[in-house]
Amino acid sequence: MKIEHLISQIQKKQSFLCVGLDTDLDKIPTHLLSEEDPIFSFNKAIIDATHSYCVAYKPNIAFYEAYGLQGWKSLERTMDYLNSQYPEMFTIADAKRGDIGNTSTRYAKAFFESLNFDSITIAPYMGRDSVEPFLQFEDRHTILLALTSNQGAFDFQTKKLEGQALYKEVLEVSKSYKNAERLMYVVGATKATYLSDIRKIIPNNFLLVPGVGAQGGSLQEVCEHGMTAEVGLLVNSSRGILYASQDEDFADRAADQARSIQQEMARELAKFKKA
Amino acid sequence: MKIEHLISQIQKKQSFLCVGLDTDLDKIPTHLLSEEDPIFSFNKAIIDATHSYCVAYKPNIAFYEAYGLQGWKSLERTMDYLNSQYPEMFTIADAKRGDIGNTSTRYAKAFFESLNFDSITIAPYMGRDSVEPFLQFEDRHTILLALTSNQGAFDFQTKKLEGQALYKEVLEVSKSYKNAERLMYVVGATKATYLSDIRKIIPNNFLLVPGVGAQGGSLQEVCEHGMTAEVGLLVNSSRGILYASQDEDFADRAADQARSIQQEMARELAKFKKA
Repeated sequence: MKIEHLISQIQKKQSFLCVGLDTDLDKIPTHLLSEEDPIFSFNKAIIDATHSYCVAYKPNIAFYEAYGLQGWKSLERTMDYLNSQYPEMFTIADAKRGDIGNTSTRYAKAFFESLNFDSITIAPYMGRDSVEPFLQFEDRHTILLALTSNQGAFDFQTKKLEGQALYKEVLEVSKSYKNAERLMYVVGATKATYLSDIRKIIPNNFLLVPGVGAQGGSLQEVCEHGMTAEVGLLVNSSRGILYASQDEDFADRAADQARSIQQEMARELAKFKKA
Repeated sequence: MKIEHLISQIQKKQSFLCVGLDTDLDKIPTHLLSEEDPIFSFNKAIIDATHSYCVAYKPNIAFYEAYGLQGWKSLERTMDYLNSQYPEMFTIADAKRGDIGNTSTRYAKAFFESLNFDSITIAPYMGRDSVEPFLQFEDRHTILLALTSNQGAFDFQTKKLEGQALYKEVLEVSKSYKNAERLMYVVGATKATYLSDIRKIIPNNFLLVPGVGAQGGSLQEVCEHGMTAEVGLLVNSSRGILYASQDEDFADRAADQARSIQQEMARELAKFKKA
């Protein structure tokens, strides 16, 4: 998907919400467990109920791999459904991969070609030749982990590498990668105050922001420090939407949650335009 | 697998060779392509031919994911075969995963429980709470990327974090993780001279060393700087063994390559004992 298409979807829907499909058989409504493919049935119901309020879906690959072959099948069916029914949606494989050259190319093919995702999350630790194979794919996007929302982010990411925080060095160095215009970055919402610094290094790239809601980040703060003229934000919510209810009304309650976030986003977009 | 078991296998076989199962349909002998599951058929033949000369097998997960459902199935069959026919083998999922808490637990279950691997490779970028979920599993091992063998390693890993190279900080900090005795580390053989420094920080942990052979590292140098009283090394070779021949004799030629490395290892083990 071209970035212009994502931007126009955000404006049209007045939403930059990404719904995380972290589908967990222990948490979905029990009446679905008798279905032939409960994970897909759940995803389909969530997608049908929330698609008007969001611009992206992000399956976390761990949740599918945990169920082996069956999980992989549910992921394939979910992607087929999304790509055929809602081709306007931006899709993110939250895979956090990262390996050397020819192995990265394998992962890129698995996610960009076989599964037809628009983007994938990548760990930067192995550097340039682990990232550039993903950047070769036109109209596909590579979302580099920069500053994550978990406690462990302070183990390395915020420590100083040659005088500046490692996560900033990741932003800085990755700007010189071939096809760097296809890069986006993960920045945890629980660290919204870091966003102004980040925008000094990468003024335009899209940021994928997890951690609003359940993990305690503030949407308003994220927008204040991270929004650009082309919005430049995708804010993710997973559990808060998926598991709003565990009863038969789960899809309606998920829609309520997504709509409520979308409305808050519309207010932030209006605020930014005015300012 | 208990670490003592791995050590006794190394002594018994006089080998610390790990065979990387980076199985690529474009490179395996063409006569196998008509089989029902060519990837498994190839792996089975390689395993049967090389098992006397190595102590570990390491499927690189990217190669399986690239083939979608069918690839995942081939991986499951390979692991079932290894665990039933050669239960003495140490198995490594070269997956380079790394995600936050509950997602890491999912990956740990997928690889340690569903697929029954003894160990998995993990990227350290997200820090403590992305690694500790893997360390909870008794007699399973977490192999942290420290210093990788690719060019991109110089993007971040060798740069100074708070005064010391990032990869050393990874070694240092990870020593304080809960159940750190279950940690091993990836250290690229192309950087054998770094090994003496690494052994100052982690004198005993096992190192998984890629990059001997095709990537140009020297086994002798690795042993000189990295070997411990309990050996403490697993040296990987993938392409050099797997694709020694693309004809019908591929398994015999793979065995020749593995045997030749094993013999060099036996000499290094004797040298160390004497010293």
